[in-house]
Amino acid sequence: MLKRNPLFLTMLVTTAAIMLTIAPAMAQTDPLPSWNDSAPKKAIVAFVEKVTKDGSPDFVPVAERIATFDNDGTLWAEQPMYFQFLFALDRVKALAPQHPEWKDQGPFASLLKGDLKAALAGGEKAMLEIVMTTHAGMTTDEFERIVKDWLATAKHPKTKRPYTEMVYQPMLELIAYLRANGFKTFIVSGGGIEFMRPWTEKVYGIPPEQVVGSSIKTKFELRDGKYVLVRLAEINFIDDKTGKPVGIQQHIGRRPIMAFGNSDGDQQMLEWTQGGTGTRLMTLVHHDDAVREFAYGSESKIGTFSDALRTEATKNGWTVISMKNDWKRIFSWE
Amino acid sequence: MLKRNPLFLTMLVTTAAIMLTIAPAMAQTDPLPSWNDSAPKKAIVAFVEKVTKDGSPDFVPVAERIATFDNDGTLWAEQPMYFQFLFALDRVKALAPQHPEWKDQGPFASLLKGDLKAALAGGEKAMLEIVMTTHAGMTTDEFERIVKDWLATAKHPKTKRPYTEMVYQPMLELIAYLRANGFKTFIVSGGGIEFMRPWTEKVYGIPPEQVVGSSIKTKFELRDGKYVLVRLAEINFIDDKTGKPVGIQQHIGRRPIMAFGNSDGDQQMLEWTQGGTGTRLMTLVHHDDAVREFAYGSESKIGTFSDALRTEATKNGWTVISMKNDWKRIFSWE
Repeated sequence: MLKRNPLFLTMLVTTAAIMLTIAPAMAQTDPLPSWNDSAPKKAIVAFVEKVTKDGSPDFVPVAERIATFDNDGTLWAEQPMYFQFLFALDRVKALAPQHPEWKDQGPFASLLKGDLKAALAGGEKAMLEIVMTTHAGMTTDEFERIVKDWLATAKHPKTKRPYTEMVYQPMLELIAYLRANGFKTFIVSGGGIEFMRPWTEKVYGIPPEQVVGSSIKTKFELRDGKYVLVRLAEINFIDDKTGKPVGIQQHIGRRPIMAFGNSDGDQQMLEWTQGGTGTRLMTLVHHDDAVREFAYGSESKIGTFSDALRTEATKNGWTVISMKNDWKRIFSWE
Repeated sequence: MLKRNPLFLTMLVTTAAIMLTIAPAMAQTDPLPSWNDSAPKKAIVAFVEKVTKDGSPDFVPVAERIATFDNDGTLWAEQPMYFQFLFALDRVKALAPQHPEWKDQGPFASLLKGDLKAALAGGEKAMLEIVMTTHAGMTTDEFERIVKDWLATAKHPKTKRPYTEMVYQPMLELIAYLRANGFKTFIVSGGGIEFMRPWTEKVYGIPPEQVVGSSIKTKFELRDGKYVLVRLAEINFIDDKTGKPVGIQQHIGRRPIMAFGNSDGDQQMLEWTQGGTGTRLMTLVHHDDAVREFAYGSESKIGTFSDALRTEATKNGWTVISMKNDWKRIFSWE
């Protein structure tokens, strides 16, 4: 039968040759080369092996292999300030020529003078005003374009790298490793869902439909002869703290079996994950590397890792990753 | 090299034999056997072929092959009444012993006497009261169990079949055909998201994370020592009419390239789909087969297919499926 098609036979022989050559090499390749061989890596690999091993008492079918990741401080950096807020500040500057009234108005006047502290003195109200002014009023397509254009040129204030290079190499490897093992990976972030979607597929391999985040309301309308969704200056959903389990259920409709976070905002996501039946893995990234990244914890307003969270982690058997001790490399360009 | 492993060689030869045998058979198999060879089938097949053909000017990458389906009246039947409302009525009866006060109270008293017309005389307010009473108060896990238990025993009033057998065989074939061509298929329904998720994977092969629907709010809390999401008697989102594009954007984050509906509630989903760049296919199912299913249109309160929708369809070049003329078979058990 093989003789019927010489091309087909050649293909088979070639395939066989390739398989025989690469199989042993693959078995030896470490899927997490940027991780030290310390407890977190061991816990992750042991977990993945037991839930993917057919016949194991902990086996989980592919469809139920859901892993959720916070974004700010878990997949990419969040200091000296959430990147989305730095985006909003840049937008205020870019839009200022069209808004002469800002020169004398609330947080904008201070911002444009470069006095961030005064701009934020108005607390949550001032922040919300800055965010809504820069995130609403345009269509969803226009906002996507604005985010992409900003990312193409903006640089992180400390490293001078594009923000999309401020992602953690060990987490990129982890996402790829999970995906190779049949997991569906989701972002579940307090950040804006439409701020993340334009780049998560390219950077993390996570498509827009697997991004859960905070959102503002939108309105379907006919504008200039085209049907569009216009972004309104009204909160729709805050995907933080108790909002994370709510967002996971709304969006995914099943409990994750693995969840990764880094701050108090992630506690409820980890509790919800742990509350399901069967084996689960809950993990927190701790920022304790002032040399290679940033060191902050209970005292930080951004990405707070409180003592209470530490106590919860210990009590519940959650894995805590020390960036300093457990990661060989933090950024790909190191 | 092949001689190194006799088992491996045997496997290759077997694989080759299987491939040579089935390849021609596969090429001849009609993926849509329950469709007549009329215009809708031709339009669907032509569309799929051009968007999946590498090098075609209409080629669409796999990641962007998003198809959305309304559920009630598009994937499964919706007469004599939305099945979810029949579920609510059954729940009122099941819960009545725990609610002696219902004997004298609003829509419940009429319902329990079997007088549906009187129960619904209160209009939207009465319906909402019935829905909230039967859909809220329990945890998401408990509600899932209730829906599954109901589906296991409840029967359609006319056909006496389980509701999950009231699905349209041509649409099951279509979903499978699209999936085989790299499409991701989503439900975008006015029905309750958590009413659909317990069975869509088994019945349609559509997992919970690909179901978009109407929802009530939920609250994360600790109940009897377990973290749960409690369903609240408060509307969160209505996924109908202009809500459909909003729901699609919130949940999927990209425009579909194909959309299927059957009623006025789907018009905006089709408009939103059509508004994207590149080629698109918008389709409406029309219920015109009183013998094999039901015949209804502009006069029906359930699944209204108004004259205005018909006009829009014609104007915009949308495909309209006549169940009577375009489908060989409607249900799998015919």
